[in-house]
Amino acid sequence: MKIPDDVAAAVDHGGSLGRAKALFPQAPEPFVDLSTGINPHSYPLFDMPATALSRLPEQARADELVAVAAAAYGVRSAAQVVAAPGTQILLPRVASLVEPGKARVLGPTYAEHARAAAIAGHQVEEVSRFEELRGADLAVVVNPNNPDGRVIEREWLLGLAASLRVEGGLLVVDEAFMDVGPHEQSLAGDVGQGGMVVLRSFGKFFGLAGVRLGFALAGEAMASRLAAQFGPWAVAGPALEYGILALGDTGWQDATRAVLRLQAARLDELLGLHGVPVSGGTSLFRYIDFERAGSLFLALGERGILLRHFADRPNVLRIGLPGVEEEWQRLGYALAAWSETERAGVNL
Amino acid sequence: MKIPDDVAAAVDHGGSLGRAKALFPQAPEPFVDLSTGINPHSYPLFDMPATALSRLPEQARADELVAVAAAAYGVRSAAQVVAAPGTQILLPRVASLVEPGKARVLGPTYAEHARAAAIAGHQVEEVSRFEELRGADLAVVVNPNNPDGRVIEREWLLGLAASLRVEGGLLVVDEAFMDVGPHEQSLAGDVGQGGMVVLRSFGKFFGLAGVRLGFALAGEAMASRLAAQFGPWAVAGPALEYGILALGDTGWQDATRAVLRLQAARLDELLGLHGVPVSGGTSLFRYIDFERAGSLFLALGERGILLRHFADRPNVLRIGLPGVEEEWQRLGYALAAWSETERAGVNL
Repeated sequence: MKIPDDVAAAVDHGGSLGRAKALFPQAPEPFVDLSTGINPHSYPLFDMPATALSRLPEQARADELVAVAAAAYGVRSAAQVVAAPGTQILLPRVASLVEPGKARVLGPTYAEHARAAAIAGHQVEEVSRFEELRGADLAVVVNPNNPDGRVIEREWLLGLAASLRVEGGLLVVDEAFMDVGPHEQSLAGDVGQGGMVVLRSFGKFFGLAGVRLGFALAGEAMASRLAAQFGPWAVAGPALEYGILALGDTGWQDATRAVLRLQAARLDELLGLHGVPVSGGTSLFRYIDFERAGSLFLALGERGILLRHFADRPNVLRIGLPGVEEEWQRLGYALAAWSETERAGVNL
Repeated sequence: MKIPDDVAAAVDHGGSLGRAKALFPQAPEPFVDLSTGINPHSYPLFDMPATALSRLPEQARADELVAVAAAAYGVRSAAQVVAAPGTQILLPRVASLVEPGKARVLGPTYAEHARAAAIAGHQVEEVSRFEELRGADLAVVVNPNNPDGRVIEREWLLGLAASLRVEGGLLVVDEAFMDVGPHEQSLAGDVGQGGMVVLRSFGKFFGLAGVRLGFALAGEAMASRLAAQFGPWAVAGPALEYGILALGDTGWQDATRAVLRLQAARLDELLGLHGVPVSGGTSLFRYIDFERAGSLFLALGERGILLRHFADRPNVLRIGLPGVEEEWQRLGYALAAWSETERAGVNL
């Protein structure tokens, strides 16, 4: 089964209900959106002071945010932390920290890295083996990787950064999903060595993708250069308020990590029950690589359950965690209906 | 009277209560912050849907925002509008639309333009006469100007843009305060001619500086290049919600323009009553250029009323509009006390 081109093109990064409706106009709504790796159990919402919207963000609050982020991520100094309105907006700026040259992205992975490097003027190549990153001017690793969850060990990354540094190259490690581990492989505490930038995303783990908040961690000189690109008031009032509270709330973070692990295991079990093998991922999303991926994507989509499909890899799917119990049930029913149809040998 | 260096340095862009407290630790709080040109009567706050914070911003909402902005600003096509998380973050990107060369900023004006142009690699010069902008690779005009309110006529700007365009140069017109006019001098409807970028700010007129929302208006090709730098989800959920509602609310906009005009007239009258001459500005801030500026800044600051002072121009002050009646009264009392002291010939 092949997914039509227009369908594939429309899926893109996931997370768009507008696209979901265009894809599956007959599907029952509301959609169960499992197309992202965003935590469905978001940090508790609270009433912000009106001044968070009306006044210019205060520098003192921005300073507080980077201090809290440094502690949360295990960075040695707040001066190594740059806060930005989302990780996405950081990508071309980080790629521009080195002169245009050879960029290599360890793939397959999040597509925006290649795009950002190209925008920054680099010749971009996606490589499939870690060793091929050596000799690049800009090397990009997503760790753990999106969508397959592959983890590169910290020692390897440090070795690569050291070898790139000698030639003035830069290693970018996107730790967008590192909040759910494995923490011991994070490079957040190592950025002071230079030659590397670590990216951290606020919205995914905390389930607050709409506030737009992300961080670059780097040696102080590089962090200063990056911060200058964004200027004052880079982070909006709501992002400051949520960032400071949520990043400082280690109790919620620990509890949430435990919940997400359980939910991921539950999802694996449910998928397995219906003959869908999970071959990787993180606690925020699961990775599926099997030949009936296209059939599964369409069958679930028609029942209003949106997974993440990849245009260039028809056998691959990413599936996020359902939130409320009703979403689990709808997923269960849809999987049962799909597997029954498959067993009956009927091709959709 | 000279303002101490540390005091002058600490004022910066205005709008920081943290800095105000550091400057005037003995002042009664809360501060009356008149150091910005942000409307104290902000667009009415409303309860956003939780998904504005929890979900990734929808592309359809972002499309809606630029369409509403195009209508509000008088741009010919939504494809000529780029939305960004604040105007500030646009500046280095706009300055990078042309290869590094000679940047000339018509000054004195908002200091971030020179900084952004320098970050983009330009040799930056502040010029004081409009004619000196000719021949630049990047020419920057703030219109109406901040802080003195000087207006450059549209025809002049179009002529300059045409002459720059011939050599591949770019005219940037920052219309951050154009919401309060004079609208007929706006270049928003002309950007399709090419060779120019118009910047519009959401937070000032709508009194929502914390949401971080700004726009670049440019020909379609240039707008596409700019938008690519920001990638998907550049504008946060709250900024989308407020932007769409407020920019579409022409009733509120018209009423607010009328209110601001009255308030600015009231402020001029109050200042004049106490011997402070107003020599320019817009309905969102007034411009003061007189030799007792330093004395006035300190006297009001000690009474918890913060004006905008400029380190390199000791005779210049900018004063925003008080909000609630109590703020007007505190300003009145403070002005009276200052003028009495001045009349008594006592130097503070």
